[in-house]
Amino acid sequence: MKSIEKSANIGVDLGGTNLRAALVDRRGKILDVRTARVPAEGRAISNELASRCRSLVHAAADLGLDVRAVGLGVAGKIDRAEGSVIFSPNLPSLNGFPLGRDLGRELGVPVVMENDANAFGLGEGWTGAARGIRNWVGITLGTGTGGCLFLNGKLWEGDGLGFSGEIGHMIVEPGGPACPCGSKGCLETFASARALVSGARRAISLQEEDSPLRTLEGRGKLNAETIYECASMGDPTALGLFRKMGWALGICLAGVFSLLGIRFAVVGGGVSASWDLFSETLNKTLAQNASMLGPGSAVVARSSLGGDAALIGAARLCRKRG
Amino acid sequence: MKSIEKSANIGVDLGGTNLRAALVDRRGKILDVRTARVPAEGRAISNELASRCRSLVHAAADLGLDVRAVGLGVAGKIDRAEGSVIFSPNLPSLNGFPLGRDLGRELGVPVVMENDANAFGLGEGWTGAARGIRNWVGITLGTGTGGCLFLNGKLWEGDGLGFSGEIGHMIVEPGGPACPCGSKGCLETFASARALVSGARRAISLQEEDSPLRTLEGRGKLNAETIYECASMGDPTALGLFRKMGWALGICLAGVFSLLGIRFAVVGGGVSASWDLFSETLNKTLAQNASMLGPGSAVVARSSLGGDAALIGAARLCRKRG
Repeated sequence: MKSIEKSANIGVDLGGTNLRAALVDRRGKILDVRTARVPAEGRAISNELASRCRSLVHAAADLGLDVRAVGLGVAGKIDRAEGSVIFSPNLPSLNGFPLGRDLGRELGVPVVMENDANAFGLGEGWTGAARGIRNWVGITLGTGTGGCLFLNGKLWEGDGLGFSGEIGHMIVEPGGPACPCGSKGCLETFASARALVSGARRAISLQEEDSPLRTLEGRGKLNAETIYECASMGDPTALGLFRKMGWALGICLAGVFSLLGIRFAVVGGGVSASWDLFSETLNKTLAQNASMLGPGSAVVARSSLGGDAALIGAARLCRKRG
Repeated sequence: MKSIEKSANIGVDLGGTNLRAALVDRRGKILDVRTARVPAEGRAISNELASRCRSLVHAAADLGLDVRAVGLGVAGKIDRAEGSVIFSPNLPSLNGFPLGRDLGRELGVPVVMENDANAFGLGEGWTGAARGIRNWVGITLGTGTGGCLFLNGKLWEGDGLGFSGEIGHMIVEPGGPACPCGSKGCLETFASARALVSGARRAISLQEEDSPLRTLEGRGKLNAETIYECASMGDPTALGLFRKMGWALGICLAGVFSLLGIRFAVVGGGVSASWDLFSETLNKTLAQNASMLGPGSAVVARSSLGGDAALIGAARLCRKRG
């Protein structure tokens, strides 16, 4: 048996479109990465994952490292004890599929599963923007809006109902835009890639004249990136969507801070690349509405690990539970 | 020294108008109570309190009981270490006053202080509606809206910023009615005695004809109790205010449950006497908006200790920290 210093773990970030697997050392440093498209079918996903992980096990051996466990971050509701996905909106073929158990049998090492937003938080808390912070909330701005909560330095899991930290489904504007969750005006309907596209479509439908957003929509190219480009070039409608995102994040975080008596948040996910377009409104709204906090005491930091946060956090899972 | 079975504590509920002090046994049973009007000046409040407590110490001695400590619940921001009130909106003469230290010196026993909403929660968690529940949120509907949070069976104190569980200042309707805290549309602006009166005044100003509420206002008798009576007699405007209260509580609790992954709340305080007028709307709104919870899994219970919750909770403080 090799010494613990000679060991590493594999962290996997399984998204709706791409999967990434990384060999991560005991200090949270990524040593090697594998990527692949996600196949349509559950069994094929499991095989693809196993193949990438085996490749990393070989890479580890070449470095004189022993892979101890695999941590798996997946968007959706996870049954950790069973190692299966209960419900994943972006990977419907995995619903009920024993992905973790399968993969563990295939690789011969323990596999630990976690919700992807929680994996993001475990990464940021380990080597990222929340390092050393005991109480904080994490928000991932992606297709939807994910969240996680850390209390007393630990991932908060609530009553064990299969969800926690779901800040994306806190209601910011009652009666606001419809959310896939069934409610209206959730944070997710203002602060996600989907919200930007829906918001742009609503604005286009009210515009009488041509506009850059309408042109994009006509060409089938309306998405978060192109809306960001429009806003960066000064289009007021596109800019308004990012300001609304900042406003909604500010209202929501003010409530979270008042409820929990805390003052720290980390924002990540793909859409956080538009930080310069929403952070000013976020901080202004937060200062106006977090009435219990002294001026300037709230801190909303940008993810420092970017797209690697969930990978590193998934590897961290192995040390926590594996 | 008497055995621990022969000991009791004193719990004090210090409100803006009245103070109550109770002798509470080790099982949370109230053995005797003293009440008094609250004097205007800090020193006079301290003397009045000391006098009621001494009377309870004598009553305890007659029962063969030894008073070990005094727990003091006060509305406002408390400095527990100093035993002083940092800021109390309803008892301004106490701001900065070393009430706990003074009283401790006077009585010769330890005095522990706590925010009154937290005292309410400690009471309900000990012998009331939240007994045996590990994770829950408490709401007190009084002049304003107080809150407390219990996680893993303990009062959650956040980052130690002097507040926590301030659900009353979570924003329910951005841009809504102005709140004394400086924000707009906080839960407190819909779910408190003050909210009922302000809401009634807004409604009256829009009414063209006479109404029961306008008559009350003209006689200087518009308050939470008289609005409740109007509603009970079927006045649609008054009924609407209670439904709006239930709606705001439902929106807010849905967010708290999504964020924390929990499903239990207790509602108390004087205004919770109007339970029959707001609980149906509360439960309906909660079911519609707590999208992560399964149907019917959220539980919002009514305080079972009523006006005694903060008294009993204040006595519980002595066992926790005294």
